[in-house]
Amino acid sequence: MAHRVVIVGGGFGGLNAAQTLDGDRRFDITLVDRHNYHLFQPLLYQVATGALAPGEIAQPLRSILRRHRNLTVLLGEAVGLDAASRQVLLSDGGPIPYDTLIVATGAHHSYFGNDAWARFAPGLKTIDDATAIRRRILIAFEAAEREHVPERRLEWMTFVIVGGGPTGVELAGSLGEIAHDTLRRDFRSIDPADARILLVEALPRVLPPYPEDRSASARRQLERLGVVVRTDTRVVGIDEHGVTVETGSGTDHVETERIPARTVLWAAGVQASSFARKVATATGAEVDRSGRVKVEPHLTVPGHPEIFVIGDAAIQPGGPKGGPVPGVAQGAIQPGKYVAKAIKARLAGRAADVRPFHYVNRGDVAVIGRLAGVTNIPWLGPFGRQSGFAAWALWLGIHIVYLIGFANRLVVLVRWAWSFLTHGRGSRLITGSPLLPDIEEPEPPA
Amino acid sequence: MAHRVVIVGGGFGGLNAAQTLDGDRRFDITLVDRHNYHLFQPLLYQVATGALAPGEIAQPLRSILRRHRNLTVLLGEAVGLDAASRQVLLSDGGPIPYDTLIVATGAHHSYFGNDAWARFAPGLKTIDDATAIRRRILIAFEAAEREHVPERRLEWMTFVIVGGGPTGVELAGSLGEIAHDTLRRDFRSIDPADARILLVEALPRVLPPYPEDRSASARRQLERLGVVVRTDTRVVGIDEHGVTVETGSGTDHVETERIPARTVLWAAGVQASSFARKVATATGAEVDRSGRVKVEPHLTVPGHPEIFVIGDAAIQPGGPKGGPVPGVAQGAIQPGKYVAKAIKARLAGRAADVRPFHYVNRGDVAVIGRLAGVTNIPWLGPFGRQSGFAAWALWLGIHIVYLIGFANRLVVLVRWAWSFLTHGRGSRLITGSPLLPDIEEPEPPA
Repeated sequence: MAHRVVIVGGGFGGLNAAQTLDGDRRFDITLVDRHNYHLFQPLLYQVATGALAPGEIAQPLRSILRRHRNLTVLLGEAVGLDAASRQVLLSDGGPIPYDTLIVATGAHHSYFGNDAWARFAPGLKTIDDATAIRRRILIAFEAAEREHVPERRLEWMTFVIVGGGPTGVELAGSLGEIAHDTLRRDFRSIDPADARILLVEALPRVLPPYPEDRSASARRQLERLGVVVRTDTRVVGIDEHGVTVETGSGTDHVETERIPARTVLWAAGVQASSFARKVATATGAEVDRSGRVKVEPHLTVPGHPEIFVIGDAAIQPGGPKGGPVPGVAQGAIQPGKYVAKAIKARLAGRAADVRPFHYVNRGDVAVIGRLAGVTNIPWLGPFGRQSGFAAWALWLGIHIVYLIGFANRLVVLVRWAWSFLTHGRGSRLITGSPLLPDIEEPEPPA
Repeated sequence: MAHRVVIVGGGFGGLNAAQTLDGDRRFDITLVDRHNYHLFQPLLYQVATGALAPGEIAQPLRSILRRHRNLTVLLGEAVGLDAASRQVLLSDGGPIPYDTLIVATGAHHSYFGNDAWARFAPGLKTIDDATAIRRRILIAFEAAEREHVPERRLEWMTFVIVGGGPTGVELAGSLGEIAHDTLRRDFRSIDPADARILLVEALPRVLPPYPEDRSASARRQLERLGVVVRTDTRVVGIDEHGVTVETGSGTDHVETERIPARTVLWAAGVQASSFARKVATATGAEVDRSGRVKVEPHLTVPGHPEIFVIGDAAIQPGGPKGGPVPGVAQGAIQPGKYVAKAIKARLAGRAADVRPFHYVNRGDVAVIGRLAGVTNIPWLGPFGRQSGFAAWALWLGIHIVYLIGFANRLVVLVRWAWSFLTHGRGSRLITGSPLLPDIEEPEPPA
């Protein structure tokens, strides 16, 4: 009988594991995901800011994996684990038995215990998040166009992005471009360039994992796009009409400030999926504050060599300088391939040959609006630290190569080329309920 | 003071009116729409069937009209009309005064008084309709893959399209292609080619406005794609598990039949927007059973030469053979241009020169899956009656030329070329709530 491998999650980790196990007839693979598509998350902010359409960065899992005849894709939600009888429990339908389990369920955003903020400051993890954020941004300009009270108009024209990591920086850069470039001639009562875009970060600099000079360069490039960068600034409150922040570090004088804003975007914290915590409970494994499972050097759960947890669902050892693996795409892609190879080696009786997982830092690239960005690619030496156009060009190349699906690559290239030439953004639809918020329809006169 | 023209609706009629009035500084134009985009409705069925993404057939009205400096686009909903003081009332914000009003609010689907059917048989008029239908179709195959009871699986694998007009025919053809071609290797427990696709039409043939031989050809082409065409068949009931139909014409023996099906799509009837009825009430104009306003030969409301009603919101005289103008894209585009020219002529004191509206039949094209279709283009003589590949090629050319936005044209061309070569469909995402319907999440074991 074939060795049954169950993979929960079709993101970078799960998909790469599935593709690396491919073709080996000794396996009977089941990939379970709540969505029917694989999402290229690094470009999600481009959907949120109207540059790309959802379908251009996502591809149905079935069509990516259709050639793998020993693989079944299941649309379903894993809600529990029976580690003793080796079965994954689904929210509907029978349990799925496994010989080896790969948990790659990723993370969603976390409000550090302030779940009430979720309503006012949406995060960016799924396609639906992205279209909801796109809707908010576009509606804010529409509402400002129709608002004649200056204070209220200012609230609509102020955008606060919480979190100065790669997602926050890329969102802020895109918003700067939208306000100063894309929409510049679209309105009559407002000038979109008057929009205030604030990027708020609790640490002393943006892009904390990058070297200091790259952070400084990113900040300068953001400011050139009109983004106000507020470091050493902690968010202590969010409601419908704005954000309350504290500035000044620990021993200094701490000041509280109120920033009126109708659009607040959350790019600050993540938390492992709830299935990761269920795996920990079922196996007695530890989790950290973010709900990530502590795994062994081979990325297995302690005492359960048949259960791997990878990507954002785990704290993976083997990262840079002896630390954990960072929460970037490569931090799931590499483990995905690694566990697939480890499973193959075990089946071939070479389990002892499998070395602990070791993360290779391929480098980071962040893009900041049009023709700008920063890179940090250690293995390229000094050449790996680029800013501006060179960083942007590198980013372009990498993302086109990695994007799933050849038609998507072509379509995205066309869109980008066109946006570049026309300063436009092709996908600025307000979908879902189409009207402005907070509007009640009065009885029309008879 | 400039002459104030208010256009309600940014579809084919309203947009063409706005563009034709363009540049004339004597006008101060306001275009009001509930959506921020113009939608290329003839391709909506391609979004519903996953061939194109929503952003590829829609373009923000602001960006289409940005060069028109004497034109303001307003995101808002017109809910009433004060014909005496010449003002359009919005659901929020102050009323908009006009000197001339163009009502181009279109139509939505109608269930002929059976509004309870709407839940089970969605129609196709908006982007959100299209993504909801796409979701239903894709989830039906996912559910069938997981369903092991044969009767229930058959329910999931049966698709009924109600209405044999162009939309119904194009939806049925696309579904045939999806089942037999696109998904052919995607599933493990089911064979998508086993799907039953039924096109139900109350009249004796599909595509009633076409000549009989074209209808017959369309039927043959549909049957080649595995679609079962049921003419002379009236739907008398729809619920969650299927459709009840009556067959046999008036004097014949009438039989009632039950067709079990989880996916029913509505392409049968339309009804003018509710604003059209409000215009009629405010002006004393007549409406027909579908809520369309009866307008004069100059497309104005009787007694109100300053109010034009065009497109699907009106019964427009001047159609073929002395009848009304058909409810196709050209039936709104031509009136849109006509009223703009009429308004210009009036302002120039040449009102008496404006002749009654006269519709020019440019012809009809319907595409039926891959490389197939029918055309009916009277002014091309015998050449205007094509089937199969020639019809498909004509359709392709026309739709690419008419599509709004150059980048969209390029992107759509790339997608179509790619789909054609790979037999794929690029935009098959299940968005919105991602899980299968009717599933309750059980408490997971502790």
